[in-house]
Amino acid sequence: SLAKLLEKREVACGASTPGDAVPSKINIWADLSDDEAQVVYDLLKDTFNLTASVNATMYDNYVTWIETLRPNKTDAIAYLDNDGPVPERWARATVFLGTDEYTSDEFPDGYWQELQVGPLNTNGSTPEISELEYIYTKSKVSFAKGYKDDLKWAAAEEVYAAEILSDTMLPVLVDLVGEDIKTYGEENSTVECWATDPFQIDDDGTVTDWATIFLNYHDAGDVTPTGVFLQIVMTGRNVEDYYISQWVYNNIVYNSSGEFREAWESDDFVKLPKIDTTNLNTTETFVYIGQQGTTRELDEKLAPIAIEPEGRRWKYSESERYFTWMDWEFYVAWNRDNGLALYDVKFKGERIAFEIGLQEAIAEYSGDDPFQAHTTYFDRSYGFGNEAFGLVPGFDCPYNAEFFNVTWHSNGDNNYHNNSYCAFEFSEDYPFVRHTASEYITVSKNPTFNLRSITTIGNYDYNFLYKFFLDGTFEVSVRAAGYIQGAYYNPETGDPFGYKINEVLSGSFHDHVINFKADFDIAGTANRLAKVELEAVNHTYPWAPDKVFSTKQKRRSVIANETYLNWADAGAILLIESAEQNNTWGNPRAYRAVFPGGDARRIAQNTHTIINNAHWAEKDMAITVQKDTEFTSSHVFCSQDLEDPIINFDNFVDGESIDGEDLVYWFNLALHHLPNTQDIPNTIYSTAQSSIIFTPFNYFDTEQSRDTLQQMYYTYEDATWDFNGVSVSPECLFGIEPLNFDAVNYDGMQISKDTTNIPST
Amino acid sequence: SLAKLLEKREVACGASTPGDAVPSKINIWADLSDDEAQVVYDLLKDTFNLTASVNATMYDNYVTWIETLRPNKTDAIAYLDNDGPVPERWARATVFLGTDEYTSDEFPDGYWQELQVGPLNTNGSTPEISELEYIYTKSKVSFAKGYKDDLKWAAAEEVYAAEILSDTMLPVLVDLVGEDIKTYGEENSTVECWATDPFQIDDDGTVTDWATIFLNYHDAGDVTPTGVFLQIVMTGRNVEDYYISQWVYNNIVYNSSGEFREAWESDDFVKLPKIDTTNLNTTETFVYIGQQGTTRELDEKLAPIAIEPEGRRWKYSESERYFTWMDWEFYVAWNRDNGLALYDVKFKGERIAFEIGLQEAIAEYSGDDPFQAHTTYFDRSYGFGNEAFGLVPGFDCPYNAEFFNVTWHSNGDNNYHNNSYCAFEFSEDYPFVRHTASEYITVSKNPTFNLRSITTIGNYDYNFLYKFFLDGTFEVSVRAAGYIQGAYYNPETGDPFGYKINEVLSGSFHDHVINFKADFDIAGTANRLAKVELEAVNHTYPWAPDKVFSTKQKRRSVIANETYLNWADAGAILLIESAEQNNTWGNPRAYRAVFPGGDARRIAQNTHTIINNAHWAEKDMAITVQKDTEFTSSHVFCSQDLEDPIINFDNFVDGESIDGEDLVYWFNLALHHLPNTQDIPNTIYSTAQSSIIFTPFNYFDTEQSRDTLQQMYYTYEDATWDFNGVSVSPECLFGIEPLNFDAVNYDGMQISKDTTNIPST
Ligand SMILES: [Ca+2]
Ligand SMILES: [Ca+2]
Ligand SMILES: [Ca+2]
Ligand SMILES: [Ca+2]
Ligand SMILES: [Cu+2]
Ligand SMILES: [Cu+2]
Repeated sequence: SLAKLLEKREVACGASTPGDAVPSKINIWADLSDDEAQVVYDLLKDTFNLTASVNATMYDNYVTWIETLRPNKTDAIAYLDNDGPVPERWARATVFLGTDEYTSDEFPDGYWQELQVGPLNTNGSTPEISELEYIYTKSKVSFAKGYKDDLKWAAAEEVYAAEILSDTMLPVLVDLVGEDIKTYGEENSTVECWATDPFQIDDDGTVTDWATIFLNYHDAGDVTPTGVFLQIVMTGRNVEDYYISQWVYNNIVYNSSGEFREAWESDDFVKLPKIDTTNLNTTETFVYIGQQGTTRELDEKLAPIAIEPEGRRWKYSESERYFTWMDWEFYVAWNRDNGLALYDVKFKGERIAFEIGLQEAIAEYSGDDPFQAHTTYFDRSYGFGNEAFGLVPGFDCPYNAEFFNVTWHSNGDNNYHNNSYCAFEFSEDYPFVRHTASEYITVSKNPTFNLRSITTIGNYDYNFLYKFFLDGTFEVSVRAAGYIQGAYYNPETGDPFGYKINEVLSGSFHDHVINFKADFDIAGTANRLAKVELEAVNHTYPWAPDKVFSTKQKRRSVIANETYLNWADAGAILLIESAEQNNTWGNPRAYRAVFPGGDARRIAQNTHTIINNAHWAEKDMAITVQKDTEFTSSHVFCSQDLEDPIINFDNFVDGESIDGEDLVYWFNLALHHLPNTQDIPNTIYSTAQSSIIFTPFNYFDTEQSRDTLQQMYYTYEDATWDFNGVSVSPECLFGIEPLNFDAVNYDGMQISKDTTNIPST
Repeated sequence: SLAKLLEKREVACGASTPGDAVPSKINIWADLSDDEAQVVYDLLKDTFNLTASVNATMYDNYVTWIETLRPNKTDAIAYLDNDGPVPERWARATVFLGTDEYTSDEFPDGYWQELQVGPLNTNGSTPEISELEYIYTKSKVSFAKGYKDDLKWAAAEEVYAAEILSDTMLPVLVDLVGEDIKTYGEENSTVECWATDPFQIDDDGTVTDWATIFLNYHDAGDVTPTGVFLQIVMTGRNVEDYYISQWVYNNIVYNSSGEFREAWESDDFVKLPKIDTTNLNTTETFVYIGQQGTTRELDEKLAPIAIEPEGRRWKYSESERYFTWMDWEFYVAWNRDNGLALYDVKFKGERIAFEIGLQEAIAEYSGDDPFQAHTTYFDRSYGFGNEAFGLVPGFDCPYNAEFFNVTWHSNGDNNYHNNSYCAFEFSEDYPFVRHTASEYITVSKNPTFNLRSITTIGNYDYNFLYKFFLDGTFEVSVRAAGYIQGAYYNPETGDPFGYKINEVLSGSFHDHVINFKADFDIAGTANRLAKVELEAVNHTYPWAPDKVFSTKQKRRSVIANETYLNWADAGAILLIESAEQNNTWGNPRAYRAVFPGGDARRIAQNTHTIINNAHWAEKDMAITVQKDTEFTSSHVFCSQDLEDPIINFDNFVDGESIDGEDLVYWFNLALHHLPNTQDIPNTIYSTAQSSIIFTPFNYFDTEQSRDTLQQMYYTYEDATWDFNGVSVSPECLFGIEPLNFDAVNYDGMQISKDTTNIPST
C-alpha cells in the first residue's frame, strides 16, 4: 500500500537518488582484489613453503596478512596531477618463518618477515618477492617480539587452564574466585583469563606476561575482576616449557602455585571481598547493557529521524570508493591495520590533503596490581580494519546513512565484512551562519557530510568520524564507548589509581592516545608551519604619544625545523601555510588546526611498557618532511618490540628544515580517562571523546559557503522570503522505508567469500 | 489531499502530540503581566512625575525598564521544597531622574535610580517604592555614567551630522570618504557614524567618546570602514556644548575641524586608499550575505530534515514556561537584559541547579586607531532579551522545533516578540553508547533536548544553546556569527592588530568573554569544590619492592575558599561535589565541569576600558557562596561606570569559606577572535564558538541512560533484534507539514501589545 500511495505523486515529496559519482582517476589505494591476493598468496606459498594457517605451528612458515602496498606519493601525484601512468600494483605481505632453514643465532626461534610483492597485473611476467625495508628500520622481527598471534594465545591458554584446574590451585581459586572457576576453559565458562600487552622480555631473553582472572557474564569480564593475578613465562617456542611463575593476590607475591596454596591454607591468610554473582547472569545486573529500569515519559515513541525529502544530495562510486558532496571529493581506502583512510581530499577542485588516516591507538594503564601496571595496548595490532563490525542502521548511523562493505586478506583467506563504514549527510543542530540586520535577516543551514567507522577492540568501541562542512572546514573525531578495563579495587592500595565504582571494581586510570597522519598539501606541497601568539602588550599610538595603552596584538613566528609540539607551545593559532601562495590581501593561504582542549599525549612517559615504539605519543603532535620511506608511524610489530621497533617515529623527526617543504602533520587525539560511575556499565560516547578541526585561514579571499542554496533571505519591508528555489517547507507525504537490518551480520567477518564486486548494501 | 491521505491511518506513522506539562509549582520567575507592569508604571508616574519616554528630555524624569524582581532563593526554596507560600511578586524599575529636585552637588545632572516596587497583587494595599540597594553597591548612578540611552545617541548624532556636513569638513570628507558622505543623516544614507563604548570620563568630569565613519551598504557598515575617526565631547546635559574635539586620520591627530581642513589642503597630505563602492549596493559585493556564486551539485534539493514519526516526545506548559523531557524538568524565565534563564533544573527528580543564566558578554577590541583602542562593549546594556529577534523555522532551529514568544517592559510600554527562543529534540550524529561483544551488540541512540535563543547585538548574532542528554549531562554553548567590527587597515600600523582581509579592511583582533551564573545544588545545597590532578609519579609496588615504576595517579584537593580560577589551574578534573552525600561506593556525588579548550578570560587586563566593572572577565571562572544579595554579576550600568560600578564582582569573591556551603559557580565562555578571510562576509558559527559541559561524576551509582527505550540489543546466536517495543523502522507515509513562517515578524518587537496570555505559535 505504501507503493500505491506513493504513486500519487502530487502528495509525495519527489525524492530521487542521484547517479554514481564518476571519478577521473581510479582508486589506486584500493584493497587487493581476490585475484591479486591469490597471485600473491600462491607465490608466497611456493617461495616459503607455507603451511596453511589453520594447520600451522610455531615451527612452520605461514602468512598472516596480504594487502595493497599503497603507491608512493611521488607516483600517485604523477598519475593524479600530471597524466602519469597508473602506479604499479604492489602487495605487502607478512609471514612468519619458523622452519629450520629460517632459524639462526640471531633468530633461534625463527622470525617475522615483511615482504613486498610486485608488480602485480603485468601481463605474463611473474611478480617478485623481496624484503620490505624501505619504510621500516628492518624487515625481520624475532619470534618473541613479533605478532602475538593465535598460536601464542592458545599456548598460554593451555598453561592457564592446566594451572587453574590443578589439584593445587583449584581449591584456592574456588575459595577466592568462586565456584565459577570450576567451569574454566569450558565453552560457556563464566570465568576467563586475560593476558596483557606487552610481553616483558628480559635481557636474558626470558619472556613473561601478566594475566588476571575475570568473571565473564554478559561478555563484561573487564568490569568483574577477581583480584587474582598471575605471571606466565613464555620463553621460546617449546610450549612445554611455559609455566606460571608468579601469583599475586592482595599485593602479596607467591612464587609458585604451591607457595600460594600453602599461604592460603594458613590461618592468617587475608581474603578479599568477592563480587556477588547472584544476579550477574540476569538482565538486572549492573554489567548488563541492554534496557533496564523504568520507562521515561514518551520514550515509547521513536526519537527524531533524519529524512531527505528530495533524496540523497551526495554521490559515490561503489567500485572506486570515491565520494562527492558539495564541492568536496575524496577516495576511501581500507586495510586490516588502520581501517579507513582518505586520499586526495579536495575542496572546490584544490587538494587540501593527500592522505589522512588513523595510525595507531594506545591505551596505557595504571593500577595497584601487576596486570594494570604492565598494560599498554597497541590496538593496531588487533586491527582497526578487521574489528570494524557492522554498523547498525538508524543507531550507529542516522536513518539516512548509506553503508559500505570492506575486504581484507589474512591467513590466506579473503575476508569480507558489511556495514563497516557509513556515509551520511547530517543537518547540524545550529545554522552555519546568520545575521539579523536592520533591513533583512539571512540564515544558512549547516548540512555536513560524515564518514563513520566503529571498531571494537575487545572491550572498547572506538567511534571515528570525519565531518566536512560547507566552507572547507573538516573535523576528525574519535569517541570511546564499551566496557572499561577495570581493576580489582583493593581497599588498601587502590585509591590513587582509580575510584571504587562498584563492589570490588576500580575504574583504573589510563590514557588513550590516538595517532593520525595528515599529509596536508595547502595550495601545493610547498608548505610551512607557523604559529600566531595573541599577546597582551603595552603600546603607545602615534595619535596619543604621551599615553601607554594596555592592549593586545598578534605575533607570528615560523617553525623552521621538524619538531614535536604540544598544544601549550603551539601559540593561540597554529597554521599549516602555503609557502608560495598568498591570498589576494597578502597573507599566506593556510589551514588552521584547532584542538578543542587539553593535552594529547601520554601522562607518564618513562614507563616500562613503551620505549622507542611510540615516540609520537610523547607530545601532542609532530611535523615532518614528507618521505615515501616514512609511510606510517606505527606497525603491528611496534606492540611488543619496544626497544628497536620496526618503525621508530623518532627517526622521522630528525630536525630537517620544513620551510617550504612537503609536510606531513602527525596529530594525536587523546583521552586521559579516569573512569567514574558514569562509566558503568559502559563508557559513553558523549563525554569520552577527542576531536580536532582543520579550517581555512586566510586560505580563500572570503568564506566559501555563500554559494549554498540552503539559505534564506528575508527583507522586512517587502516581507518576501527568498529560499533560492529550494522547497524548504514541503507539504507532502513522505514514504518512510524500513531500515535494512538484514544487511547486518554480526557473526563477524566472512572468510573466503568471493569478494570480487561485492556491492555495499 | 494531504489531510485525506492521512486519514488512511494504516499507512500514516501515527504521530500524536502530547498534552501540556503540568508543573506542581508556578513559575515564580516569570515576567510581569501587563497588569502588574501597569500598576508599577502608574505608581512610578505618580511618585516621580514621569514624562512619557517618547517626550522625555535629559531634564525630565522617565522610566526605562520595569521587570520582575525575581524572588530571593531563600523564599523560592521555601515555596518549592518546603510547602512555603508563593513568594511575593516584586518589580524592579529603572528611572532617570533629571528634574531640578533630583539634581545636587553629587548629581548635578540628575541620576539613574534603581527601584524596587512591591509587593504586587496584594488585595487592596498599594505597593511601596523603595531604592533597590540590597543587590547593588549603590542604587543611584550619575547621568554621565548611566545608561547610554537614545537621548544621548540622538544628541551625539546631531553633532556628528552638523560637523560632517559643515562647510569646513564636507569637502575633506567627500575627498577622503567619497561622494556618499553627502547623504549623511538622510534616511537611506550610505554613510554612518558609530560611537563606541565606553565613554572616557576624565577626572575633571569631561566626557568624551570616540566614533568612526563607516560606509553603510547592506547594513554591513562594520566591514566597510573609511579610516576617519572623530572624538566627541559630551560633558553634561547641555547638548549645545557638545562638540567634536579631535579628528584622527592616518594616525595623525587634528585638534579641530579647521586644523584637519588645513592639513588636507596642504600638498603633503597623505590620502589613504578608499574602498571601491562600485558594487557595494549590489548582490555581487563582498558584503552581501545572501546567495552568491555557482550552485553546487545537488544543492537544489532540500538538505535533510528531522521528523518525529510518532510526534513530539516532550511537554511544556505555555503559561508556566515549564519544560519536561526524559526525566529532565525546568522553568524558563526571560528578561530584557539577559534573555533566557533556567530555574529549578532537575534530573530524575533531584535538583541539579537552582538557576543557570547568562549574565553579560563583553567584546574588547584592539587596533591601531583610537576607535578600536577605546572599544569595549558590555552587550547586556544593549539587551540580550530585547534583541532576540525571531528565529526562522527550519533554519535557526530544526524543522521539528517549537517556538516561544516573550515579553518585556520598557519606556512604559509592554513589548512582545515572537519566536525568541525555541525548543527541540535532536538526534545527535553519534550514538550515546554502544558495544559489540562476542555474543551481542547493543547501541543506544542519542536524543537530546535543546533550548536555543539568538540575540543580535548590532553586527553580531550570539547563538545560545542549552543541550540536555539522557544521562544527566548538559552543555551550555554560545556561537557567534554576523559581521565582525572591522577596522580600517592602515598599511603602516595595522599589522600587529589584525589581518588585512579586504581592500581596506582589518579584521581587528578582539576578545569575547561571556559570563554565566550557575547556582548548582549538587545533592542539596551543601557543596564543595574539588579538583583532581592526573599526575605522572614514580611508585614502588608491594609486589615488586625492588623496582621503581613510572606510572600515573590521581590526586584530589579541595578548594577551601571563594576564588577566581583559571582552567590551567583547575586540575584535570574540576568537580562541584556534595559535601554531605556519597554514592554507594563512597565517593562524593558530584558534577564535573568540562571546558573543551583554551582560556576563557580577557587577554589584556589592565586596559583603560575596563576597571572594576568586569572583574569576572579576568579569570576563567569564579566560585562564591550563594547570597540573595549577589543576584547577578553585571548590570546595564556596568557598561559606562568603570571605577565604582553598581555591581563590583570582586565584592562577591571575598575569600569566604566554601566548604559545605551553598555555592554559585560563575563561568565564562570566550572567544579570542583574530578574524581572517573566513570571517568575510560574516563570522561563521561552526568555528566561532565556546562551550562547557556539566556531567555527573560519581553522582549516581551507575550511568543513567540504561532505561531508555531508544536502544537495541541483538544476540548473534538467536539473530533476534530487540527494540524495546519502539517502532524503530517504520514503514509508513509521514505527512510533512509546512513550516510556519507567518509567525515570524522581523519588524522588531511590537510595542504596547496586550501581552496577557499571548500564546507562542
Ligand atoms: Ca625527517
Ligand atoms: Ca604535504
Ligand atoms: Ca563572598
Ligand atoms: Ca548552590
Ligand atoms: Cu578509557
Ligand atoms: Cu568576534
